[in-house]
Amino acid sequence: MRKNLKKSLLLYLCTGPVFPPGSIAGAVEDAVRGGVTMVQIREKEAPAGDFYRTALDVKKVTDRFHIPLVINDRLDIALAAGAGGLHIGQSDLPLREARRLAGKALFIGVSVSTPEQALEAERDGADYLGAGAVYPTGSKTDAGQAIGLARLAGICAAVRIPVVGIGGINAENAAEVIKAGAAGIAVISAILSRRDTEAAARALGSVLAERHEIVP
Amino acid sequence: MRKNLKKSLLLYLCTGPVFPPGSIAGAVEDAVRGGVTMVQIREKEAPAGDFYRTALDVKKVTDRFHIPLVINDRLDIALAAGAGGLHIGQSDLPLREARRLAGKALFIGVSVSTPEQALEAERDGADYLGAGAVYPTGSKTDAGQAIGLARLAGICAAVRIPVVGIGGINAENAAEVIKAGAAGIAVISAILSRRDTEAAARALGSVLAERHEIVP
Repeated sequence: MRKNLKKSLLLYLCTGPVFPPGSIAGAVEDAVRGGVTMVQIREKEAPAGDFYRTALDVKKVTDRFHIPLVINDRLDIALAAGAGGLHIGQSDLPLREARRLAGKALFIGVSVSTPEQALEAERDGADYLGAGAVYPTGSKTDAGQAIGLARLAGICAAVRIPVVGIGGINAENAAEVIKAGAAGIAVISAILSRRDTEAAARALGSVLAERHEIVP
Repeated sequence: MRKNLKKSLLLYLCTGPVFPPGSIAGAVEDAVRGGVTMVQIREKEAPAGDFYRTALDVKKVTDRFHIPLVINDRLDIALAAGAGGLHIGQSDLPLREARRLAGKALFIGVSVSTPEQALEAERDGADYLGAGAVYPTGSKTDAGQAIGLARLAGICAAVRIPVVGIGGINAENAAEVIKAGAAGIAVISAILSRRDTEAAARALGSVLAERHEIVP
């Protein structure tokens, strides 16, 4: 899993508050069919039981398409649902504790917004980083101020683990995120706010495919 | 731990939304000095990192007084903080999954409001039950309608594991909760809404001590 993690980060779909609750699995399935390479479930408001059941529902989809499922924040739900990975932010359980509890059962991604946080996360055992918000975004209200492309490039240059850009990324600006050194893009609205999530994913995927032909 | 669990349930303090955020550990320490026998931390709103740090702070107190610390809902935080137990509600991670992940590291309590839920939880591996709300309460907004003493007695009679009553319990009605078959009382406001948490705990403790002389 970790060996192919960099590839899995290319088009990383996060569910978020923009998403209508209920039938997440259906929209995710369409998006995965459109080329999404990894899926993260964020459920900041739902009770743990609902979060767990959503994880199981989405896992049926990600398993069928052989892509990793990542759980945001809740290590216990990640383990219970048999997810591939855990994603934690700077205000979640400390990475070292998460690493210790997860053992080899989960890869772990960490949200960072500075090269210092990136280096710290790499040192403490992160498998990948989510850097952002690259651009201003309305999807993730706790994402903070936009860091911009230069800071993103600084983060990518500071660490050896792969970095995915997140925040306000769409088909128009995705190429420059990859150019800044990111292994991929993480999106919420750019896919989930569209009626046709499959087409939205496909459009993003084709931009990324072009970039990958140019970028070494 | 499990062997003495029934005794630990006698005067069970839960932190809750009535509690002023910040210096939880200080108020808990006073309450423990007043006779609290077990402490549960509930942090439904705080980020996981804050919850974890609060757990470590309170654990210093509970360790010093040799009483168990219980974490509400978050199995991962319970494990990370080295708590004694986990408490889950009907909408949290399913008990079987929690039991599987916790192994022998944690005892597990489950909130129930009917004899059917009590039997199911016992069957799925609960170590104790929190039954309620016994009386109407304002401290725990998700506690549902009051079940009353008769239903509490029915729950206590249905299972072999110890049951603690929760919800609207105070020094005036604590004795009848024990009389209904509960091993103890769980309180939030009755201790934490008082300025002198040590005196509040002591007052409750003396009522319980009286009952214990009468009830076999």
